[in-house]
Amino acid sequence: MDFELAKQISIEGNSKLLLFVMDGLGGLPNPKSGRTELETAHTPNLDQLAAQSACGFTIPVAPAVTPGSGPGHLALFGYDPLAYNIGRGVLEATGIDFDLQLSDIAARGNFCSLDDDVITDRRAGRISTELCVELCRKLSDIELPNVDLFVEPVREHRLVLILRGSGLSEDIWGTDPLGEGSPPLAARASSESGEWTAGLVNRFCKEARERLAGESPANMVLFRGFAKRPDWPTLGSVFKLRAAAVAHYPMYRGLARLVGMTTLTTGPTLGDSLATLRENWGDYDYFFAHYKTTDKAGEDGDFAGKVAAIEEVDATIPAMLDLEPDVLMIAGDHSTPAIMAAHSWHPVPFLMRAKHGRADAVAAFNEGEMAKGSLGVFPAMEALPLAMAHAGRLVKYGA
Amino acid sequence: MDFELAKQISIEGNSKLLLFVMDGLGGLPNPKSGRTELETAHTPNLDQLAAQSACGFTIPVAPAVTPGSGPGHLALFGYDPLAYNIGRGVLEATGIDFDLQLSDIAARGNFCSLDDDVITDRRAGRISTELCVELCRKLSDIELPNVDLFVEPVREHRLVLILRGSGLSEDIWGTDPLGEGSPPLAARASSESGEWTAGLVNRFCKEARERLAGESPANMVLFRGFAKRPDWPTLGSVFKLRAAAVAHYPMYRGLARLVGMTTLTTGPTLGDSLATLRENWGDYDYFFAHYKTTDKAGEDGDFAGKVAAIEEVDATIPAMLDLEPDVLMIAGDHSTPAIMAAHSWHPVPFLMRAKHGRADAVAAFNEGEMAKGSLGVFPAMEALPLAMAHAGRLVKYGA
Repeated sequence: MDFELAKQISIEGNSKLLLFVMDGLGGLPNPKSGRTELETAHTPNLDQLAAQSACGFTIPVAPAVTPGSGPGHLALFGYDPLAYNIGRGVLEATGIDFDLQLSDIAARGNFCSLDDDVITDRRAGRISTELCVELCRKLSDIELPNVDLFVEPVREHRLVLILRGSGLSEDIWGTDPLGEGSPPLAARASSESGEWTAGLVNRFCKEARERLAGESPANMVLFRGFAKRPDWPTLGSVFKLRAAAVAHYPMYRGLARLVGMTTLTTGPTLGDSLATLRENWGDYDYFFAHYKTTDKAGEDGDFAGKVAAIEEVDATIPAMLDLEPDVLMIAGDHSTPAIMAAHSWHPVPFLMRAKHGRADAVAAFNEGEMAKGSLGVFPAMEALPLAMAHAGRLVKYGA
Repeated sequence: MDFELAKQISIEGNSKLLLFVMDGLGGLPNPKSGRTELETAHTPNLDQLAAQSACGFTIPVAPAVTPGSGPGHLALFGYDPLAYNIGRGVLEATGIDFDLQLSDIAARGNFCSLDDDVITDRRAGRISTELCVELCRKLSDIELPNVDLFVEPVREHRLVLILRGSGLSEDIWGTDPLGEGSPPLAARASSESGEWTAGLVNRFCKEARERLAGESPANMVLFRGFAKRPDWPTLGSVFKLRAAAVAHYPMYRGLARLVGMTTLTTGPTLGDSLATLRENWGDYDYFFAHYKTTDKAGEDGDFAGKVAAIEEVDATIPAMLDLEPDVLMIAGDHSTPAIMAAHSWHPVPFLMRAKHGRADAVAAFNEGEMAKGSLGVFPAMEALPLAMAHAGRLVKYGA
């Protein structure tokens, strides 16, 4: 929904909305059985819920587009993921819970191996995270004029560079040639305003080269995806929601913060998520709860593992219903079919249960049955407005 | 369909299109029976028609948006209801069959109660329509420099103010604070061009206050929604249709006129509508026929009444088919579930029967069966172009 329209017709209220995201939910049939992960899992609770719900498929970004986790979630939060872009550097900083300020510039970095100035391994043999931490420490006291800097390890060869100061610009091309056999690039400005920042980055890289010269295999660092943290309208300002996120992984917490959610402290298990929801149920009116295991198993190509994860969620459905949400959505940010061992473009099963929702004639929560649902195949970014309508939080448009 | 494209590919012809609008058509299950109004009604004719038709659901304005009658109808007429806005004042004037000219400014008004300049009741205790008529008469000979004015009663405390003259602007904020406990506002210009008009309105209000001073409880009047009648492209100019409306209620007649339809004189019953269609069948090629009772019963929360209304329509289906329309659409401008006693956002059942239309494997005309239809869930504004195609009135695009 257009945000101007949303601002115009959204109202505050006491109804409660719960979005439960099963990351990578959608799947494809296992060639051995002909059944998808959802069709294979034993899910009496989800099946019963589906029969009480309006059902369909979400298209996360656009037909045929395989989403990353960022766009997949932003859509479910009501944001057009093609209009609301997050730069790679920001996503990476967000993913390590770094508290980016609006004027900071963040870039994704990786340690690499140079031989005589030529890149021989862009990932420096995937060095250990411990070594990454140590090397980042070596670079973190490099000094640049008029800006502070942070060199933060991520995992293995990956790091984040953050520059903090006034007048910094994200309009620069990175130093990573994205291939081997050539030297690192010099950072270049993509507009006039980027020139000063590009100069700073090049100065940093020159000094990094000197400090890492004696190291092996990680004797240089490459950067790309320079970006500023976006200053977006919040769920509060657009939809008048007091929104909270129950997510354990930093990246999802970061995404939630970008749209103005409060991120609640929670543990790694599904039980932790439920407990956190229960404890905070009175204090917010929109909850996003994130479940990672479905995607993890899917990415690992672990069909049985994804089936087991779905069954784990199924077992907690009664506890979710005990919270008595006015609107309950079970959704996915994208599909991750185990047989592809990767994110995919396939529309994602979706159900919404609400007092004034239509209950569809579907027998189960899976790909085959969702095709019979009354919601049809619809853009994921319409899920939140739809939930708002069902929660009595959108007033009539026009007389 | 984009109007530029529509102009390019629409052609004149002798085929006949009939859009029969059952106002507030869509419903929700009665908790006692688990069946919606359409699922409860005995509708052998509509069911047979559905089995011969392409079926689906229309989304009147946008997913999750509950439409007023204006946007709901404009969409069925092929107009994007988010782009084609009607100001409140215009809709109100339209609703009393007032013949607005393009340079007129209309505002919605209501008589209110003032105590020592503070509004104590925005609706003056919902005075009788008779008193409203009398009070409007008291105000109608107020004189303003260089403009004529009309003060027209609507119903109970509601009225319309129309200013007529050259140089009037709709760029003014109204005098209604939309709450009690404060004095009426002064009209203010929302742009420079509104200043003269705002001054006129304030002069009117000052004089109205004096003339109503001795009245009780309605001793003042408030205005909002100042608007000009929009000058829109017509169904004739865009789709080359000679369009006629068979509607008894003034608001729907007014909406039809805004898109260039001829409004035929008809009586209040469904039999009158059929007779009017028959009498004028030779003279136009597109007919919009409006049936109000479904919405009225829905708004009253009268489930059985809505069921009976649906059955009344069902009984006239053979008479509609006797007219031999090339394309027959049975549609709704929005849903009005009786259990909600209000308009709602739910997609609306829709069927279209035409010689070259697909006949879907559906057994009945209701919410459950429409989910199986080949049209899917689609924007209501595509219904008219779709009907044009089926009537052989859109030529090929591109070679």
